[in-house]
Amino acid sequence: MSLEKVLAHIDADQNAAIERLKDLLRIESISTDPAYAQECDKAADWLVEDLKSIGFDASKRPTTGHPMVMAHGAQENGTHVLFYGHYDVQPVDPLELWDNPPFDPQVEDTPNGKVLRGRGTSDDKGQLMTFVEACRAWKTVTGELPTKVSIFFEGEEESSSPSLIPYMNANKDELRADIALICDTGMVERNTPSIVTMLRGMVKEELTIIGPNKDLHSGMYGGPSINPIRVLTKALGDLHDDTGHVTLEGFYDGVDELPENIATQWKNLDFDGAKFLSEVGLSKPAGEEGRSVLEMIWSRPTAEVNGIWGGYTGEGFKTVLPSEAHAKVSFRLVGQQDPDKIQAAFRAHVKSYLPEDCSVNFHDGSGDNASNMAIDHPAFETARYALSDEWANEGVFVGCGGSIPIAGHFQDIIGIESLLIGFGQDDDSIHSPNEKYDIRSFHKGVRSWARILAALA
Amino acid sequence: MSLEKVLAHIDADQNAAIERLKDLLRIESISTDPAYAQECDKAADWLVEDLKSIGFDASKRPTTGHPMVMAHGAQENGTHVLFYGHYDVQPVDPLELWDNPPFDPQVEDTPNGKVLRGRGTSDDKGQLMTFVEACRAWKTVTGELPTKVSIFFEGEEESSSPSLIPYMNANKDELRADIALICDTGMVERNTPSIVTMLRGMVKEELTIIGPNKDLHSGMYGGPSINPIRVLTKALGDLHDDTGHVTLEGFYDGVDELPENIATQWKNLDFDGAKFLSEVGLSKPAGEEGRSVLEMIWSRPTAEVNGIWGGYTGEGFKTVLPSEAHAKVSFRLVGQQDPDKIQAAFRAHVKSYLPEDCSVNFHDGSGDNASNMAIDHPAFETARYALSDEWANEGVFVGCGGSIPIAGHFQDIIGIESLLIGFGQDDDSIHSPNEKYDIRSFHKGVRSWARILAALA
Repeated sequence: MSLEKVLAHIDADQNAAIERLKDLLRIESISTDPAYAQECDKAADWLVEDLKSIGFDASKRPTTGHPMVMAHGAQENGTHVLFYGHYDVQPVDPLELWDNPPFDPQVEDTPNGKVLRGRGTSDDKGQLMTFVEACRAWKTVTGELPTKVSIFFEGEEESSSPSLIPYMNANKDELRADIALICDTGMVERNTPSIVTMLRGMVKEELTIIGPNKDLHSGMYGGPSINPIRVLTKALGDLHDDTGHVTLEGFYDGVDELPENIATQWKNLDFDGAKFLSEVGLSKPAGEEGRSVLEMIWSRPTAEVNGIWGGYTGEGFKTVLPSEAHAKVSFRLVGQQDPDKIQAAFRAHVKSYLPEDCSVNFHDGSGDNASNMAIDHPAFETARYALSDEWANEGVFVGCGGSIPIAGHFQDIIGIESLLIGFGQDDDSIHSPNEKYDIRSFHKGVRSWARILAALA
Repeated sequence: MSLEKVLAHIDADQNAAIERLKDLLRIESISTDPAYAQECDKAADWLVEDLKSIGFDASKRPTTGHPMVMAHGAQENGTHVLFYGHYDVQPVDPLELWDNPPFDPQVEDTPNGKVLRGRGTSDDKGQLMTFVEACRAWKTVTGELPTKVSIFFEGEEESSSPSLIPYMNANKDELRADIALICDTGMVERNTPSIVTMLRGMVKEELTIIGPNKDLHSGMYGGPSINPIRVLTKALGDLHDDTGHVTLEGFYDGVDELPENIATQWKNLDFDGAKFLSEVGLSKPAGEEGRSVLEMIWSRPTAEVNGIWGGYTGEGFKTVLPSEAHAKVSFRLVGQQDPDKIQAAFRAHVKSYLPEDCSVNFHDGSGDNASNMAIDHPAFETARYALSDEWANEGVFVGCGGSIPIAGHFQDIIGIESLLIGFGQDDDSIHSPNEKYDIRSFHKGVRSWARILAALA
């Protein structure tokens, strides 16, 4: 009976919940740019105050980077869940492609219903607030939470989480729970709630190829002088063969075929790969020949150049031979691929392209394993049933192309599994201009967590 | 006998000549920046007045950009020479790297002798004044010029000369002469006067590869979505093979081996390719295997990426799959290479790398032929002997890796050959902070022109 009242309260309180979310969205918490450090701090403060207002023992925890937020509910009984989200957001450039200011969120009507538009609406402020609002509703209606709840918010997820592992290692006891809940993923389809059980890992590398000791004029030096852009384009251009395979030595070690039951679930999903690609102007899958689009996103590894620059990039022309050329490269990992081996193979690949007059610097490489959840843990089916009660279609176990390293850290450091349940849609434009979150995702997301909390209790 | 007196006068008048040059150098005639348009005009006026003071019929000629200066000497007999130079200069940024204000020229002592330091000292005000001072000396000592002299100064050489071709086409008759003299090049070595007889041409291309219709998140789309940086790096990385050859179809059509006599002259030059490269931190020539460094700079064509950019290039990391990737590419041409064919071959090369989901835009491509002087014209040997009389070493015919389009225009539009004779040194830092011109180059340059005028008469 309580659950029905809680759900009714969520419905009645929807507009107020949106206003609270807008407050959080107005804070420009771009974690990767040091110029926004104070804004990150402000977002953490806002969350601490909001959680205190609904009875959590909440506090900001300093790190060498942006602070963590930790909160514990007063309820001591029931399954202990630890909810994770991140309050930091991606940069907003290119700013000129936004129809409205990214940090002035507005509700808009669209053919698919109302959306909230702005940076962080979907990734991840809107999503993390679905859980906070579910807690608020339980507390408001019943005076308490239905089970034991702890909350853990991070402010560096969009900038490689440099403080996360040290913090988790130093606070293992406080972070221990029966299961983690993570709201930073999407739904495979508008009516199908999805629990992610496979997450790709990632290796990131930034590199600089160095040739001559200064920028040269190509009239005076062009010909005998090596151009580091030539070396960089050759090394990166050879990362893929003509069939979309990555050419690094040993790259596919640890990449397994899907288990039969998961392969069957995926085949039955109402997912149209051609439509998925056509929405971004593409028609031909660019990954390994013979694989489905879902496999390419969820269960196959990738190599991508995320940024490249060198020489003169302004208006007009400058016939310069630059001294340096740069790139940012990442690899999405699956199964048992070893990040250290992938990094070593990439570095060896680049070095094999270096002529004797060039050198290479690798900066701040980092890697995370792919994560595979133990779906025989009973919470997985419990949550799936609770989601099926809220949405038109039954809940499904899916993969996720992105890296959510926290799920692996919960396994490795705390020793718990994670239920990755999110309500993002494919067209949310996360990390892009005009990011949005469906009001329906937000509202039914809050209701979903209210159900899951009751079911897990 | 007159020549000896003229040379003696040049020696006696040296300090006054330097003061006149300093006057011209103080005018901030940066042609590429509209803020300096009045200064360009002032430099043209200064030259008109100076030429009038030594008996030239001189005037400023308006264009849609900066004015030309035209002047004709009173002497009607003898070989008709048309002297070309440019009064505009490069921008001075980064200003903080100059040891003294760029437009307050000063004579300095250096281990290699006195130099005049300041923007335009070598490129090209100091060089053009070597010719004006030679005319002044002849006029002062003998009351007339030794031969028929016309002068043509441009004010847009450092900003792509937008008015040059229209002006030359509209003034063909007035520009017609027996031979052009151009003072905008350097000496192959401090004691070896050099006549440039081969100039490389150039094709410039800027291109954009377009993939998905917006920037994508590599977690959500990485695998099935084509990354335009992958296409760009592959296309550009394959522009050279492992032996330094350019791979474009038909690229070497029209590239000839050096004539025997020129090849011998070059081999005998006191030019140390290893030293040339070591000064910029390099040791191994990056051009076609089996070619000398001088050939690579002067007589072999190149392909270079002068700029490349795409994706996220700021601090930190952003796992974006960009919608677009960009590059600026140039080709230095030699011999009879056809700029239109090279451009077409490059565009075909890029298109052959495009998957069906990518498109390419080429922006503002432009091309200039290489220029090869007809060195059997008698003026070439005449000038070479005159130079040999002035300098310690004999004059030589050399190449030039850069493009000096005016020489090609004199051939194509006016139908005359050019004697490219300049006195710049490799360490003049043209286009860079702390540009200088050796006082020795200036003084012996004036004396060289005095001799050449007499010899050509």
